[in-house]
Amino acid sequence: MAGSSFGTLFRITTWGESHGEGVGVVIDGVPAGLPLEQAQIQAYLDRRKPGQSKYTTARSEADRAHILSGIFEGKTTGTPISIAVYNEDQRSRDYTAIASCFRPGHADFTFARKYGFRDYRGGGRSSGRETIGRTAGGAVAAAVLGQLGITLTAYASSIGPVTCDPARFDRDRIAASPLCMPDEAAEREALAFLDDCIKEKTSAGGTIECRIEGLPAGIGEPVFDKLDAQLGKALFSIGAVKSVEIGDGIAASRALGHENNDTYQKGPDGRPVKASNHAGGIYGGISDGSTVLVRAGIKPTPSIARPQEMLLQDGTTGVVTIGGRHDPVIVPRAVVVVEAMCAVTVLDLLLQNASATMDNLRRIYPKKD
Amino acid sequence: MAGSSFGTLFRITTWGESHGEGVGVVIDGVPAGLPLEQAQIQAYLDRRKPGQSKYTTARSEADRAHILSGIFEGKTTGTPISIAVYNEDQRSRDYTAIASCFRPGHADFTFARKYGFRDYRGGGRSSGRETIGRTAGGAVAAAVLGQLGITLTAYASSIGPVTCDPARFDRDRIAASPLCMPDEAAEREALAFLDDCIKEKTSAGGTIECRIEGLPAGIGEPVFDKLDAQLGKALFSIGAVKSVEIGDGIAASRALGHENNDTYQKGPDGRPVKASNHAGGIYGGISDGSTVLVRAGIKPTPSIARPQEMLLQDGTTGVVTIGGRHDPVIVPRAVVVVEAMCAVTVLDLLLQNASATMDNLRRIYPKKD
Amino acid sequence: MAGSSFGTLFRITTWGESHGEGVGVVIDGVPAGLPLEQAQIQAYLDRRKPGQSKYTTARSEADRAHILSGIFEGKTTGTPISIAVYNEDQRSRDYTAIASCFRPGHADFTFARKYGFRDYRGGGRSSGRETIGRTAGGAVAAAVLGQLGITLTAYASSIGPVTCDPARFDRDRIAASPLCMPDEAAEREALAFLDDCIKEKTSAGGTIECRIEGLPAGIGEPVFDKLDAQLGKALFSIGAVKSVEIGDGIAASRALGHENNDTYQKGPDGRPVKASNHAGGIYGGISDGSTVLVRAGIKPTPSIARPQEMLLQDGTTGVVTIGGRHDPVIVPRAVVVVEAMCAVTVLDLLLQNASATMDNLRRIYPKKD
Amino acid sequence: MAGSSFGTLFRITTWGESHGEGVGVVIDGVPAGLPLEQAQIQAYLDRRKPGQSKYTTARSEADRAHILSGIFEGKTTGTPISIAVYNEDQRSRDYTAIASCFRPGHADFTFARKYGFRDYRGGGRSSGRETIGRTAGGAVAAAVLGQLGITLTAYASSIGPVTCDPARFDRDRIAASPLCMPDEAAEREALAFLDDCIKEKTSAGGTIECRIEGLPAGIGEPVFDKLDAQLGKALFSIGAVKSVEIGDGIAASRALGHENNDTYQKGPDGRPVKASNHAGGIYGGISDGSTVLVRAGIKPTPSIARPQEMLLQDGTTGVVTIGGRHDPVIVPRAVVVVEAMCAVTVLDLLLQNASATMDNLRRIYPKKD
Repeated sequence: MAGSSFGTLFRITTWGESHGEGVGVVIDGVPAGLPLEQAQIQAYLDRRKPGQSKYTTARSEADRAHILSGIFEGKTTGTPISIAVYNEDQRSRDYTAIASCFRPGHADFTFARKYGFRDYRGGGRSSGRETIGRTAGGAVAAAVLGQLGITLTAYASSIGPVTCDPARFDRDRIAASPLCMPDEAAEREALAFLDDCIKEKTSAGGTIECRIEGLPAGIGEPVFDKLDAQLGKALFSIGAVKSVEIGDGIAASRALGHENNDTYQKGPDGRPVKASNHAGGIYGGISDGSTVLVRAGIKPTPSIARPQEMLLQDGTTGVVTIGGRHDPVIVPRAVVVVEAMCAVTVLDLLLQNASATMDNLRRIYPKKD
Repeated sequence: MAGSSFGTLFRITTWGESHGEGVGVVIDGVPAGLPLEQAQIQAYLDRRKPGQSKYTTARSEADRAHILSGIFEGKTTGTPISIAVYNEDQRSRDYTAIASCFRPGHADFTFARKYGFRDYRGGGRSSGRETIGRTAGGAVAAAVLGQLGITLTAYASSIGPVTCDPARFDRDRIAASPLCMPDEAAEREALAFLDDCIKEKTSAGGTIECRIEGLPAGIGEPVFDKLDAQLGKALFSIGAVKSVEIGDGIAASRALGHENNDTYQKGPDGRPVKASNHAGGIYGGISDGSTVLVRAGIKPTPSIARPQEMLLQDGTTGVVTIGGRHDPVIVPRAVVVVEAMCAVTVLDLLLQNASATMDNLRRIYPKKD
Repeated sequence: MAGSSFGTLFRITTWGESHGEGVGVVIDGVPAGLPLEQAQIQAYLDRRKPGQSKYTTARSEADRAHILSGIFEGKTTGTPISIAVYNEDQRSRDYTAIASCFRPGHADFTFARKYGFRDYRGGGRSSGRETIGRTAGGAVAAAVLGQLGITLTAYASSIGPVTCDPARFDRDRIAASPLCMPDEAAEREALAFLDDCIKEKTSAGGTIECRIEGLPAGIGEPVFDKLDAQLGKALFSIGAVKSVEIGDGIAASRALGHENNDTYQKGPDGRPVKASNHAGGIYGGISDGSTVLVRAGIKPTPSIARPQEMLLQDGTTGVVTIGGRHDPVIVPRAVVVVEAMCAVTVLDLLLQNASATMDNLRRIYPKKD
Repeated sequence: MAGSSFGTLFRITTWGESHGEGVGVVIDGVPAGLPLEQAQIQAYLDRRKPGQSKYTTARSEADRAHILSGIFEGKTTGTPISIAVYNEDQRSRDYTAIASCFRPGHADFTFARKYGFRDYRGGGRSSGRETIGRTAGGAVAAAVLGQLGITLTAYASSIGPVTCDPARFDRDRIAASPLCMPDEAAEREALAFLDDCIKEKTSAGGTIECRIEGLPAGIGEPVFDKLDAQLGKALFSIGAVKSVEIGDGIAASRALGHENNDTYQKGPDGRPVKASNHAGGIYGGISDGSTVLVRAGIKPTPSIARPQEMLLQDGTTGVVTIGGRHDPVIVPRAVVVVEAMCAVTVLDLLLQNASATMDNLRRIYPKKD
C-alpha cells in the first residue's frame, strides 16, 4: 500500500533508504508564486544533520538538497518540487552481523514479517534518514506559512528526566543550543545526564514541543481531519514518537473542569482576552486564533552499546552487542522534523479551509456581470 | 472540505447534528460475506447510550440503529452499509441563552469563526452524538476482525487522579461496571471522587486504554500511514481527547534505552518470547504480533454548573451559568468510541496489508495454466 | 474497497440498493452559507424519475428527498448533508427466475464473481436507482456553482441513429421534452425510432452532452486530476456509459492539426476572441474560460423482452425471456445524472483551485499587522 | 492542489518539466518480492523515446532511468521506487519568441491563467516529457501483472483517417512498426498520409487501443471507482486525449439492445462461451474475465509549421509561425503511455480487490488456533 504520502492539497511523498542511492521528496500542491531558494531548504536540512556535537552520530554527510523541478525564475510554479539528497556514505560494509539478528527497539523484525524480507543495511526505510524528505517538505511549507505571518518554533522541552521551565523559556537560544533547549539551566543538567548515559552505555529520550503562532481561527476540518487529529498522525508518523499531547495534554485528564476550561476576561482595553490556553489553541478540532501547542514524546535511542538478548534471523535468541557509534539521544535532531511535520500539516489544512465558505469562494471567484 | 470520512479501504463517513433529524454513518469497503445482524451494531450503540447511571446525562433516547443498505440474507454484500439513528429528543427548546454566548471548553467559537455562523442547538456537529456513527462503524469493523481472531478491549484506565492497577486488571468486570473500569478498588475510589465533583459543580476527565489482541504481525504502512500514526489520528479525532500514547507512552520519554528496549528470551519450551512490551506492539509503525496497547487522555467535561466568565456573541465578555444537566465525566461513555475507532483503524490497515507482497497476491490470484 | 465516494474537497458518498430500505447520499465539503431548500434537490430528482412517458418504466415512486442533516435556518452549515430516499416499491416479489440466471448486458455475473454472491433483487447496487444519490449531490453542487455564475445544461444529443442538429439547438425545449432533446425535428424522428424498438422488442442508446458555461479559466489540476480526466471518470462511473468525448472528441482523432487548433481573432471591439472551440474549453486539463463541452455515449438498455441465450446460475446456458416492463431507452432519464456528475466534478476542482496561488491565499488570509 | 499522484494502493507521483533538471516518478505500493531490473523499465522508456523515425522529433536524449530506491538484491522491498531521468538537452536557448505568445492547441494560456505565470520553456509541466514518469510507473505495474499472467498490448488502431482492420491484426509486428500499427496494409497507407501532412505543414491524430488479457473477473470497485471509470480518468490524464471508449465505445450508442448484449453459447466442449464482447470485458464497472478493450482518441499534434493567428502575451492577437522541428503525429510515441496508464490502473484495482471478501481475508490471515 502506498503509505509514503502525507497531505491532501499540500502533499509530500518521500522515498529512499539509508544505504541506497539517496533519499528525497516530491512536494506537490505548493501554491504558485512563492519566492523560494535552495538555501531555505538547506537551512532546514542542516538543522537535522548528524555530527553536530558529541551527542549525535558522526556520519559526516553534507546532505545537500538538489532541487530538480517546480521552481522557475526563483518562484514556485505550482507544479511538484522534487528534491533529492544523494547518499555519500555508502561505502560497502560488512552487514553480516546486522543481517543475522533483529535489533531490539528497531523495526527489523516487523519489516521482515510484513514484506517477507528486508533491506538490512542500516535500517533501510525505517532509518532516520527517511526524515530528510519530510524536513525538506516542511521547509517549503514553512516558507508559505511565513508569507502569511504564521511561524513555527520547535524545541526540546525535556531530555530524560530533565524538563525545561516555561518561566525560563528563551526562544533565542534554541538555534545555537546543542540540545535545542530553550532553558539554559535545564540544558546544563541534561548535558550532564547524557554524559552519564554515554558512560552507562545507555541512551535517553525526551519531549519536543512546537508552538504555532499567527495561525488564524478556523483551521481544521471536522470531524476526522481535525487539526489535532492530523497533527497527531503527523507526529506519530515520526519513528520513535510514543506520545502526542495537545495543550496541557496528559495533565488535562487529571484536571477538574473548572480549572481546565479556557475562559475569557475583559482585557486592559476592554476587549476580551483568553485567560488561559489549556486547550493548546484547538477546540472541536479547529484553531481558535491563539497559539497552537503540541508536544511529542520520543523514546530513548534503541541502539546502545550494551549486550542484549535478542531474536536472531534463524529463529532462536542470542546475546549480541551492536557495534558502531550510537547517538545517546536523538531528540535534538528530531526537533526540526517535528517542526517540519507541523508545518506540512498546518499548511494542508489552511489550504483546505480556503474554500470552506461561500464568502471565501466569492472572494476568489467574483461573478462576472 | 470533506472531513467526515475516515479510512481508505474500509471507510466510514459520518453525518448528523445533535438536534437535527438524526445522525448516522455510511460504512464502505466492508468485505462481502460477513454474517451481520442489527443486534451486533445495537450492542455497541447501547454501550455509549446516555442515562446509564447518575454519572451520565439522562437524555432518554433509544438510539436505535436502522440498517438501510448493504446486507442481504444476513450477510454483507460488499456494498455500503448505511445506518441511521433518528433523533427523538428534538423538542423545541429555547436556545436563546446558549445562542448568545460561546461556552467555555466547547467548539462554539471555532465553528462560528470557521463557517461564519453555527448551529447553536446543543453543539451541532461537535456534539457527542456525532460519535454514534463512528460507534456503529466500529461495530462492523469489530465483527470482521472477530472472524479473523482479532479482539479489542477498551476500558477506563483512570478517572481524574484515580488510576487502575494493572495487577488488579479484571476483564470480566468492565462490561458491567458503571465506569467501565477493570479494577474494582479503583472504581470505588473513582465513584467517591465523582460524587465530590458533582458536589463542587465541576467535572473530571480520565484515560481510556484499548488492547488489541490477536493482531498478526505486519499491519501498518510505512512511513506516514503507520499503525500508530493512524491510531493517533483516529483517537485525536474524538472530541475531548488531548493526549494519545502507544505502549509506555509518555513514560518512554523518561526511560533509559536499556530499560525501554523490548528484548526476547528463550521461553520454557525453548522458543523465543518477548520479555516485555514497552513499545505497545508496534515497531516502525508495523504490528509485531504481540498485544497492541494504546491510551487516550480525555479532558474533563467542559459543561459545568458553575458561573464562568466567557465570550459573548456580541463581542464582549460576561459571567454566565450554563443550565441543564451535565455529565460529571464522559470517560465511561467514550470507552466504546475509543474501541470503535481502534477497530476501524486496524481493519483498514489490515485490508491494505493484504496486497503487500507478491506471495499474498499469488494466493488471491492464482495463475491459470 | 471503499469505492462509493467521489471527490476530494466536495465529496459525495452514495449508498443503497434497488430493493433495500432506500438509497441516499452524504454530501460533504459543502461551503457554508449557501441558501438551500429541499425543493432544489427535489427538482433534480424529479428529472430522473421513472414513469414520465411511455418510453420510461412505470415504477411509480415519489422518490422524495429527506434532508437529514447539514442545513440550519435555510443555509448550509459546512457539515455533511445527508439525504435519504426511502424505497416504496419493495413489495415482496418472486425473484426465483432472476436469481437463476445472469441477465445479458447487466452486472449480475460480475457482482457474483467479485463478492461471492449477489443481491439479485432488481440489480442490487448496480441498479439505476443508485443514481438517485448522485443526482441529489449534483443538485447541491449546481446550487453552489449557480451562486458563482456557473451553469450546466445537459441534453440528449442523439438517440440511436438520430442526431440533433446543433443549428436547431433550442435550450428552452429541453426541460419539457420527453426525450430531453433540444432539437424538435430530431425528437420527432427519435420518437418514431423508439416506437419501432418497442415493436421489435429491442432497445436504443444515445449520447448526452453537457455544456458548462461561466466557468472561470484555471480549473483542473495537472497532471492526473485534470478537468477532462475527472469528467471522464465521473461519466464512466455512470452505468451504461461506453464512451466519453471532450469538445470535438472522437472527430479530433481524424482532424488535421491546422483545422483542430483553436486560434484567436481580433473581435469587433478589437479584443481577442476564440475563433473556434474544438478543444471543448480545456487545455492541458485546465479550463480556458470558454464553454466546456463533454459528451457521454450510452449503450442500449440491456433489458429487452426477447428470448436470449445466457449464462445460468448452475453454470450452463439457457434461453430465457426476462419478464417485466423495460425502458426502450434510458438516455432521457440519464440526462440529469450526467449533469449532476459534471456539477460535482467541476465544483470539486473549483474548490481545489481556490488555493492554487499565493495571491489567492493572501486574499483569504490577509496578514495581520 | 496536489494533482501529480495517481492511484490508491499502487500510486505513482510524477514530477518534472521539459527544461528543468529532469523528470521522474515515485512508485509507491509496489508489492514486495518482485524481481525487477533497470532494463525492464528502460525497455518501456525506449518505446516512447523521440527520434525513432522521421515521423517523430529528433531530440536525441538517452532518457536513461536511474533507480534511486526501493530495490534490494534484485527484488522490490515494498518501499517506494524512485526513478529519475535527468534532462540532457537543456542547452540555453532563446525562448523570447515562445514567451511572447500562447501557442494554439497548447496549455500555455491555461497554465498562465491558473498559476499567474508559467514556465514557458518547451511547455513546462504540460510537455510530453511528463509522460516519462508515467511510463516508468507503468513498466513496474506491468511487471507485477506479468507475474500474475496478465498482459497488456497497446497499438495504434488508426492514424488520421486510416483505420486498422481487426481481421489483419498481427500482434507480432507492433513492436517493430514505426507507427506501432498491427496491420501492415493500414500502416503503408498511414505513412503516405503522414508524408502528405508533412508536405502540407500540418499534423495528424489517431486512436490507440489497449487489450488487457488474463485479467481475472471481479476487478473494479463500484460505484465510482469502476474499472472503466478509472481507465477513463487514466487515459484522459494523458495530454492530447479527447475521447475514450470501452469495448464498442461510441458505436454502442447507435446499436440496438439485442445486438449489443453479450450473450453466452454452449461451447464445443459443452461449457459456456461468450458469444461476443461488445462491452469490452466490463460490466457494472467490474471485469468479467474476458479481454478488456479500451481505446483513446488522440488529437493532431498542435505544433505545426504554419503561421497561425494567436493570442499574444500582451493581450492582443498576432500571426506567428512557431519554429523548431515538429512531430507530424504523436500517436506512435503515445502507445506505450496508454499501455502504461492501463497497467497502473488495473494493478491498483487488482490490489484493492484483494480484500473484497471474507474468503480472501481468511486466505491471507488464517486464524491461529
